[in-house]
Amino acid sequence: MASSSVVRPEEIRRHNLGLLLRQIHRHGELTRAELTTLLGLNRSTIGGLVTDLVNLGVVTEYVPAGRDRAGRPSYVVAPREEGPYVLAVEVEVERIVSAAVGLGGRVHARRETNTQDGPTTPAAAAAQVSRDARWLAARMPPSAVLFGAGVSVPGTVRRADGLVVHAPNLEWREVPFSELLRKSLGGELDVQVGNDANLGALAEHQRGAARGLDNVIFINGSVGVGGGVIVDGSELHGVGGYAGEIGHIMLNPEGPPCHCGSTGCIETYIGEHALLRQAGVTGAFGPLAAAAVFADAERGDARAAGAVAHVALWLGRTLATLVNVFNPEALIVGGTLADVVRLERAIVEGEVDRRAMAAARAGVRILTPGLGQESSLIGASELAFQALLAAPDAGLTMSSTGGAAAN
Amino acid sequence: MASSSVVRPEEIRRHNLGLLLRQIHRHGELTRAELTTLLGLNRSTIGGLVTDLVNLGVVTEYVPAGRDRAGRPSYVVAPREEGPYVLAVEVEVERIVSAAVGLGGRVHARRETNTQDGPTTPAAAAAQVSRDARWLAARMPPSAVLFGAGVSVPGTVRRADGLVVHAPNLEWREVPFSELLRKSLGGELDVQVGNDANLGALAEHQRGAARGLDNVIFINGSVGVGGGVIVDGSELHGVGGYAGEIGHIMLNPEGPPCHCGSTGCIETYIGEHALLRQAGVTGAFGPLAAAAVFADAERGDARAAGAVAHVALWLGRTLATLVNVFNPEALIVGGTLADVVRLERAIVEGEVDRRAMAAARAGVRILTPGLGQESSLIGASELAFQALLAAPDAGLTMSSTGGAAAN
Repeated sequence: MASSSVVRPEEIRRHNLGLLLRQIHRHGELTRAELTTLLGLNRSTIGGLVTDLVNLGVVTEYVPAGRDRAGRPSYVVAPREEGPYVLAVEVEVERIVSAAVGLGGRVHARRETNTQDGPTTPAAAAAQVSRDARWLAARMPPSAVLFGAGVSVPGTVRRADGLVVHAPNLEWREVPFSELLRKSLGGELDVQVGNDANLGALAEHQRGAARGLDNVIFINGSVGVGGGVIVDGSELHGVGGYAGEIGHIMLNPEGPPCHCGSTGCIETYIGEHALLRQAGVTGAFGPLAAAAVFADAERGDARAAGAVAHVALWLGRTLATLVNVFNPEALIVGGTLADVVRLERAIVEGEVDRRAMAAARAGVRILTPGLGQESSLIGASELAFQALLAAPDAGLTMSSTGGAAAN
Repeated sequence: MASSSVVRPEEIRRHNLGLLLRQIHRHGELTRAELTTLLGLNRSTIGGLVTDLVNLGVVTEYVPAGRDRAGRPSYVVAPREEGPYVLAVEVEVERIVSAAVGLGGRVHARRETNTQDGPTTPAAAAAQVSRDARWLAARMPPSAVLFGAGVSVPGTVRRADGLVVHAPNLEWREVPFSELLRKSLGGELDVQVGNDANLGALAEHQRGAARGLDNVIFINGSVGVGGGVIVDGSELHGVGGYAGEIGHIMLNPEGPPCHCGSTGCIETYIGEHALLRQAGVTGAFGPLAAAAVFADAERGDARAAGAVAHVALWLGRTLATLVNVFNPEALIVGGTLADVVRLERAIVEGEVDRRAMAAARAGVRILTPGLGQESSLIGASELAFQALLAAPDAGLTMSSTGGAAAN
């Protein structure tokens, strides 16, 4: 229980329903016995809660095969195949990815579109996502209900209403993308928008490399460098939702100018452009250009290797600062920076050893993402599911047939 | 309700008892009508909870004078004068301050001792605090119960057991000060130890400049530069309790060496030594030496004024980084740095304008402490009261006479 709110008896059932569904969502499926242990509630209470979730159409129960020996079988509770799903979207500079994701984080279907001729406009992105939504719906069971949508954007997003304040590499400014996409999808659906690195942190914490760790930082490096922070198991939002702009920590006031208006930001030392500049690459950008530098470095090309080592040094300095400020259990380094860790871990770790305070340094691990390149997409699905997981009985209408309808 | 724990009906009363006592502790005193509004519970539930707290000996009720007109009077609920109190201690390089603090943050008595001949040893500090505790107890009502002790230390403190991992300016390393002081005080008392800046943040949030703000950073500048962070109303501890080492964010890899082993840490740019060095002061240290520089600057001394402006510039850079990382509502700048803000606010704000991201910058205020030099001392009392405020009925024995005894 948090310390700031009164608890009323009538809220307990809703709270416990959400708690049980979150466990199933996190673990994929669980037996009733496991639920009893995890939640510390008795068997009959668990039974009642499971029955409610079955009637809401979100979970199903089955007896596992091969367990027909004597004694009562322990039912397995799992997300229902035809149950609610969400539309998860990742808008990137070069592509848009849409997916239909069910409870438990299961990706039912996925569609990827390359955006040509420069970054996509908000209107074009909304139109593409609407086409994707229809394409995905056609691949889902007819009774499956689309509960909501979550969108990952590489930029600053206002938490209250999903306004994209600034996404420099998309060249979006003050774009009410949540509203745009809601209209484009028919005006009914709940559409949540979040920053890509924040959503990456959410997903890695929920079901990636940081599962079971409650103080974690996810650093996402591509052209921009973003961060998402989990503090005591919860996302760090800040007052407006803008927290985690790790790329704009100043590492050197005499450093290169940054698009944000400052100089010597972390992004100017460890972003993709810095890697390519150090490697002497001109006229090529994007993940493929960065991948070519990593391949050259692995083949022993001195200039490419030097560029990777240079970025590794500054990445280590960045991580040391984050260790001192947050005292996390893990730092998860994603995007192109994951390859920097892969190739030059000793440099990165050495610089953290040198610059982080000993007590905090001792407890931290440097990891790469457990969800590969999909952290932000899965994070977008988590964002879309949050309302359902907080109050399963408020978001869906209970039905005696076990089907569900979004309110 | 937090999302991670099951709620059982029998826990509700304890939860609500703590909630009510925390409101009284925070506000000093409240009428039953105000409690009803604040907590959203009905009159009879509030009445029952207040009666429990009266029987525990922690609060008292009275009818305010001048309210004898017709109608039911609204009782005022206030901390009981003879109720439980805590021993709050601030260990600094030059002095030890001890105080007897009651619920509501009321300082009943206070004692200050200068420590001569260099920093105090742990044993000498524990002995002094024990003398202070007896001195303070003699000034409290005989029935007042000492509930616990809280100690502020300028160093890294392990949260689990209050081990002082390293307090560089005290020259303490791996000191189990919590255990030392507990033994020195007779072996019975609960003794909590915390970092000075973390405790300053706690106090400023509870009853200082950050009251009512839930995303706040407290920066405490003296010889060292520490930080305490409040995220969504809770303290940022990190996994071991070492979070908030803002003084050791690297601002420049080519910068001066820092005692922590790194180079170019914030502390080397805005700590007291940096100010004195810039001002050309040699052979003098401590708050008085810094105060002399500020006085010189105010009188128009060019070198002193230049030193303050230099620190102001780097302080602005520090705050910009904190705005980008945390998106707080307020930055509270204390210690000698409060004078830097007072004298050169335009430089500080200008650098934040230049270097912080616009959306996060727009929502942040730069403040000085509401509790003056006492933030960490009051924070130590808050730390000592936490167990009582979490579960008032667990920490004290209920008595029919309204008196209390610590369990």
